[in-house]
Amino acid sequence: MSVYTDLDTPERILLGPGPSMVHPRVLRALAQPLVGHMDPKFLTIMSEVQELLRFVFQTTNQLTIPVSGTGSAGMEAALCNFIEPGDEVIIGVNGYFGERLCDMAARYGAAVRRLEKAWGGVFSPEEIEAELGKKPAKLVGLVHAETSTGALQPMEGMAEIVHRYGALLLMDCVTSLGGVPVQVDEWGVDIAYSGTQKCLSCPPGLAPLTVNDRARQVMHQRKTSVKNWYLDLTMVERYWGDARTYHHTAPISMNYALREALRLVYEEGLEARYARHRRHAEMLWDGLEDLGFAMHVPLAHRLPTLTTPRIPAGVDEKGIRSRLLAEYNVEIAGGLGELAGKAWRIGLMGYSSRQENVTLLLAALRVLMKK
Amino acid sequence: MSVYTDLDTPERILLGPGPSMVHPRVLRALAQPLVGHMDPKFLTIMSEVQELLRFVFQTTNQLTIPVSGTGSAGMEAALCNFIEPGDEVIIGVNGYFGERLCDMAARYGAAVRRLEKAWGGVFSPEEIEAELGKKPAKLVGLVHAETSTGALQPMEGMAEIVHRYGALLLMDCVTSLGGVPVQVDEWGVDIAYSGTQKCLSCPPGLAPLTVNDRARQVMHQRKTSVKNWYLDLTMVERYWGDARTYHHTAPISMNYALREALRLVYEEGLEARYARHRRHAEMLWDGLEDLGFAMHVPLAHRLPTLTTPRIPAGVDEKGIRSRLLAEYNVEIAGGLGELAGKAWRIGLMGYSSRQENVTLLLAALRVLMKK
Repeated sequence: MSVYTDLDTPERILLGPGPSMVHPRVLRALAQPLVGHMDPKFLTIMSEVQELLRFVFQTTNQLTIPVSGTGSAGMEAALCNFIEPGDEVIIGVNGYFGERLCDMAARYGAAVRRLEKAWGGVFSPEEIEAELGKKPAKLVGLVHAETSTGALQPMEGMAEIVHRYGALLLMDCVTSLGGVPVQVDEWGVDIAYSGTQKCLSCPPGLAPLTVNDRARQVMHQRKTSVKNWYLDLTMVERYWGDARTYHHTAPISMNYALREALRLVYEEGLEARYARHRRHAEMLWDGLEDLGFAMHVPLAHRLPTLTTPRIPAGVDEKGIRSRLLAEYNVEIAGGLGELAGKAWRIGLMGYSSRQENVTLLLAALRVLMKK
Repeated sequence: MSVYTDLDTPERILLGPGPSMVHPRVLRALAQPLVGHMDPKFLTIMSEVQELLRFVFQTTNQLTIPVSGTGSAGMEAALCNFIEPGDEVIIGVNGYFGERLCDMAARYGAAVRRLEKAWGGVFSPEEIEAELGKKPAKLVGLVHAETSTGALQPMEGMAEIVHRYGALLLMDCVTSLGGVPVQVDEWGVDIAYSGTQKCLSCPPGLAPLTVNDRARQVMHQRKTSVKNWYLDLTMVERYWGDARTYHHTAPISMNYALREALRLVYEEGLEARYARHRRHAEMLWDGLEDLGFAMHVPLAHRLPTLTTPRIPAGVDEKGIRSRLLAEYNVEIAGGLGELAGKAWRIGLMGYSSRQENVTLLLAALRVLMKK
């Protein structure tokens, strides 16, 4: 067995699809000594985290909590509590995370209907209506911000259609929450989830989730038990609700960190935060175009928090990424799934979305592209 | 909405059933800036965490990982990957967490056979054999250290019987790993899991899990997919194995913390660590007996890491716990389930297991019991 040295990690400039960089205040909150998970002090912190999550989700939903796992656990919680075997579920598949929704839903016995679109495309309300018109469904799942493609799915008008056909609307906002407008109540979204390590700039380990009363009622009227104990919201809601009934031990330190990360969002203000993300994204897009990159996603539905420049012919995309990390300490990511080798994924999320980071990345790329 | 103040938590003396106190070195590791979850640096850290987990589990199992959730997620991973609908499963139920195993196993379609015992009791190999003799089973689950009762389940001789009947042996060592001997390979345990916030003295948020090749083969020969995406080890093992295939974003900071917590275990040495836990437990037991408490669990199978003194008649158990917290900053816990109101749960785990903490607790109790 090797000798274990002190933890010695470089201070990376994280411009990949997450984790994003974490503000020093959040790191300090992480290092705060622990109280117990039923300590009155911690119960207050839980309530504050919930209030702040409602603020960032723009919702009054009572059932708004951080799920004790990473974003994918939030995705699974958003599905497994509402699906019973045989339920019809429609999933918009226009990237990697739509695929993941299908995989998860099928495990819980859903009859999954895939609504497909090229990677990078988005769905129109008419397309959703056409699919619902063929046959009703219990739930329609859409990815608001596809981390694999950089597309931003417009949500306006979706809930009206979905509800007219008696279905629930689920929204993945892993790469949008805190970075681009997310209006859970105004948009009529029934179930939404995110991750902490993207635009909230908190380490990975928790998944913000919000469920409105319409969806909650569906959950309470289940005929079968939820086929997942850890993510069973009928129990979890009693720990995060007034009863404070023990379910599992909440990740204390991660909740400290999330509270501080959300407090930073609150202090900055949502509009200012969205504008900052937009400003730096535009700076990045302009710079990349100057360097000869075309953006994979048209401007009309391009995500400001995650950009997918297509790799020009003859460019050694992997070599440049390696050198960015080794020589400039900057992380960006390769393409995922269909876009592997064809595009990069450059994230400007939360604390990573700063002018100095964009400037450094573009300057470094200018050097590396020449060679 | 209230104004959100700086995070201001007291430095509690945590002597409940977990979380235990966290060493300052672990808190500093938590506060380290993040690298990406596919960063070469993080891949090295992952390998080190796995090596150190094998050390503390006393195993050579390749599939030894921290599950990205709290102890209960570890429990669920230990069940859902091995159970297919209709499988017979025997669970030893002698406390709260045996009940939880039954609940979880049933959700995955197991035909659960409860082997019951009074809370605080333990099972003999003969009892397990008698149950297996009635009808074979696929898996036998036992709780090595019952956090709800303070009983330590002897594991010697169990695997031999369980394997003779063709079953897998699952062991919950949430409240024993790193505090009392856990010998996964020597005992022939096929699947074992724990939590980080007990005797490893790391914040809650990860669940150490180890699976041997016998169990792994059972998993790979499943006829149906694992009915839980987040905890599906057939995918998770590819991220933690040589392929490093992305599954979900690992909780980076929590893995930093776990590495440091395990490094502390490694530096102290397992034997010294077990002896320290035993020494302070005996000090606690003697002191509690002097104060008029009887221990719920007989000495022969009493857990050194979690003690359950029975509350003498006329003692206001809740009032004393509240005053311990308010006046002495010390957390202990009330009884759970059948022992609610009848016993306390006093944990001396990991960094909490120190002479000064035992001395303070006993001195404070001496004052509070008089009133």
